[in-house]
Amino acid sequence: MSPPSPSHPHPNSRFKKTIYTGTFISTPTLGALEVLENATVGVDEGGVIRFVERDVRGLGGEKGLDSRKHEEKGLKEAVTFSNPDTHIHASQYPNTGLFGNSTLLDWLQKYTFPLEASFSSLSRAQHVYTRVITRTLAHGTTTASYYATLHTPATNLLSTLCFHHGQRAKIGRVCMDHPTFNMSYYRDESAEAAVSATQATIAHCNSIDPERGLVEPIITPRFAPSCTSALLHQLGALAKEYDLPIQTHIAENPDEVKLVGELFPDCTSYTDVYARHGLLTPRTVLGHAIWLSAEEKEVVKAHGAGVSHCPVSNSYISSGLCPVRSYLDLGIKVGLGTDVSGGWSGSMLVAAREALGVSRVLASVEGNKAKDAGEEAEKPKEEVEKEMKLETTDEDKNESNRLKLSVEEALYLATVGGAKCLNLESKIGTFEVGKEFDAQMIVCGDFSLGDEDELGHGGKGKFEVRDDNPVELWGQESWQERMAKWVFCGDDRNVEAVWVRGRKVHER
Amino acid sequence: MSPPSPSHPHPNSRFKKTIYTGTFISTPTLGALEVLENATVGVDEGGVIRFVERDVRGLGGEKGLDSRKHEEKGLKEAVTFSNPDTHIHASQYPNTGLFGNSTLLDWLQKYTFPLEASFSSLSRAQHVYTRVITRTLAHGTTTASYYATLHTPATNLLSTLCFHHGQRAKIGRVCMDHPTFNMSYYRDESAEAAVSATQATIAHCNSIDPERGLVEPIITPRFAPSCTSALLHQLGALAKEYDLPIQTHIAENPDEVKLVGELFPDCTSYTDVYARHGLLTPRTVLGHAIWLSAEEKEVVKAHGAGVSHCPVSNSYISSGLCPVRSYLDLGIKVGLGTDVSGGWSGSMLVAAREALGVSRVLASVEGNKAKDAGEEAEKPKEEVEKEMKLETTDEDKNESNRLKLSVEEALYLATVGGAKCLNLESKIGTFEVGKEFDAQMIVCGDFSLGDEDELGHGGKGKFEVRDDNPVELWGQESWQERMAKWVFCGDDRNVEAVWVRGRKVHER
Repeated sequence: MSPPSPSHPHPNSRFKKTIYTGTFISTPTLGALEVLENATVGVDEGGVIRFVERDVRGLGGEKGLDSRKHEEKGLKEAVTFSNPDTHIHASQYPNTGLFGNSTLLDWLQKYTFPLEASFSSLSRAQHVYTRVITRTLAHGTTTASYYATLHTPATNLLSTLCFHHGQRAKIGRVCMDHPTFNMSYYRDESAEAAVSATQATIAHCNSIDPERGLVEPIITPRFAPSCTSALLHQLGALAKEYDLPIQTHIAENPDEVKLVGELFPDCTSYTDVYARHGLLTPRTVLGHAIWLSAEEKEVVKAHGAGVSHCPVSNSYISSGLCPVRSYLDLGIKVGLGTDVSGGWSGSMLVAAREALGVSRVLASVEGNKAKDAGEEAEKPKEEVEKEMKLETTDEDKNESNRLKLSVEEALYLATVGGAKCLNLESKIGTFEVGKEFDAQMIVCGDFSLGDEDELGHGGKGKFEVRDDNPVELWGQESWQERMAKWVFCGDDRNVEAVWVRGRKVHER
Repeated sequence: MSPPSPSHPHPNSRFKKTIYTGTFISTPTLGALEVLENATVGVDEGGVIRFVERDVRGLGGEKGLDSRKHEEKGLKEAVTFSNPDTHIHASQYPNTGLFGNSTLLDWLQKYTFPLEASFSSLSRAQHVYTRVITRTLAHGTTTASYYATLHTPATNLLSTLCFHHGQRAKIGRVCMDHPTFNMSYYRDESAEAAVSATQATIAHCNSIDPERGLVEPIITPRFAPSCTSALLHQLGALAKEYDLPIQTHIAENPDEVKLVGELFPDCTSYTDVYARHGLLTPRTVLGHAIWLSAEEKEVVKAHGAGVSHCPVSNSYISSGLCPVRSYLDLGIKVGLGTDVSGGWSGSMLVAAREALGVSRVLASVEGNKAKDAGEEAEKPKEEVEKEMKLETTDEDKNESNRLKLSVEEALYLATVGGAKCLNLESKIGTFEVGKEFDAQMIVCGDFSLGDEDELGHGGKGKFEVRDDNPVELWGQESWQERMAKWVFCGDDRNVEAVWVRGRKVHER
């Protein structure tokens, strides 16, 4: 096992008390944007927030490392934000961007299982998992709920690496024992073998982080078609025995849903499969959940399980458009997942962006469906004229427009929503006293509109032409607009530093 | 007017003959990927390709600047590619990422017209247009078909800046004279005023680039609802008189289509409006074209006009899903546009990526519609089993899957397709003798899978952990797969250098 590098003190070590100054942004409730300008946040030796003071001008300069840095670099504003990725396959990372024209079932066989099977090599696991952790941290992923593979040593290595790099993580040893629907080269020999291997990964996690302060095991049946009923039962029992979270996939693809119906004829639905096997609990995270019936949504709600919305994967391997608003309306917990490598990016910002795009496409598709069916009226010419004069706008005027997520809602899903899915909302997601300090510092580029005469300056205005900060602020944006520009245009170049539980785990 | 900077010799100056060495990639026909490994491309003093030699090992080192650079930096491979953005509003650039939950008609009034109106300030135009040109060049946009504003001085400045920075461009002075459907603060006083202003921008282009070798005017009625019939007629005549290309918007949004029907009751369709006013020619680029009827598509084809597919804008301001395959099947020219700032990115790579996503969402939506209507059969369990065993795959098995674009097809639209839309296919789009040398050099990151024992190396394998090249090659990818990873994961950090007509116009 590689030792922690000097720049990464062991996570069990205690840090100095630190006062951070700057602008702290969070989305404490769905649709709200809380902006604490000129604020100070005091963090104790254990990484816990002890005070939050708003609007403290002139205090930060001396104590706040980050406001100092901000001045040095002449950057616009530093804002902070934390977010958990509720669904990511660490082992699929080298395939990021490769999926051809496939859909779920052939994608698994063609792209995914061969790569996952290669994690019998521990050096490959070391190489790939180190890169996954460092790159997702660099993108601001403070917490990740990982699917590993079915290899116990590689899965244990992932736990160890997360712990040493300081990423908050759930570590899932993937279980899949179905003799027909898995390939012979990559499956558990039996339900018992899968359970025994899972127990070994639980024991390893307990040995490195007994308090589960940073790293925790998560029970991970791959998805119903790849598991026997016996295995599903035993995994449900294991989750209960060890008081552990559960993650799996559900209703990602219409063919998959049909298949589950045929494989589990005694169950009334895909959701019912998990419910009957003790796998639908308040600690369960259901990946995708595109094709659930209204009845199934009620079952999910009744069991208190959460949904991991994986919009990039859903769009690009043609799984479908997840009706996120219906889950939010029911009060079901919803977080975002990158779903690497069904999704082609490990960035939660890309996931938030695609969640926004998908909700708008859904609004368009459903709006036209409703118009075709005569359920939503065509706008009369007079109304369109009014709209163009901004006397009215079509925002939120009808049912289909309600399907659109706002930027603030997408950020809520990426932060507090994900924290709730992972039952971490008492620890992370906002900047509140008693929570742990998980944050990323975002910096944007300043390209103020050149309203003075700058014609003598070679056409370059105030900025350096080579500045490649992807988020360009032109000087007139509200905080809401700055966040929108960050969500749409930002990438890892905007992530100046990342902290988890008070420890700085990434710096550009 | 600012002088050209020393690093940018005047585009009329002649360069030295240059031999470029490396891997040259293009998509000469729809769906094909042509990879010339170890090739040399000879470019003459006028920027014209004089020879292309394949597979010339051992020759490049001394003469090829870029293969040398590649070796110095230890980068994986250098590939080159050129592309034209067929639809971009230069003046809307500062709003990139800002559109709220709006759709077309209220978006125009709320976000767009106020910003465009501010280009009465020439210093603002200088500032914004310089940034647009340098940033789109940095993203590899070798050619851009720009919408400016209705201000003559600012539009002329855009022409001058494109010429000096060396970006190949069509420059459109936006025309909009309708007294009701435009705001009083931002519209042409009359059809005559609009035509006269357009003539002034044509004269300016002719004065700086008489041969239209780099910069050319393009006749630009904003879209039918913002123009009187008189203006449309006069613009059609102007295009004919000066032998100029035309660009406009069509059928972007269902409400807009309805409005056009009411405003032009004598025309049989939106397409017919442009056809009757002399604006539908083989040199016309129609932006969006989401909601055209089958009959209208035939009219577009008969007139030889091209379609600029703007998928990012279409998805994010809820315009709809453009049925690109139907245009390709008809043999209609299709290029890609970023449509800044309805689209939130000026990157053609993002446009290509979203084109892929949209085609996949469309396949899913149409596939389910067909299943609901009983037109496409549900797969029997046996077939799903076969699919999971890779005995068959569902790729291209049914009509809805045909809607998916492949990576190669998306790259064709971004390069040759766009060149054809702009009637530049004899000059750009591929690396062929007689064409001009427009190219970008792409470099990716090397993260070869660590199959040796690297456990002693601090878990960092072969790569530098701080390397943030967004395209990670793990050593086993085919050229096709490398291009896929670039399309999905790449950004401007991968663009090492850009050339237009043999002149280096950007370098990282």
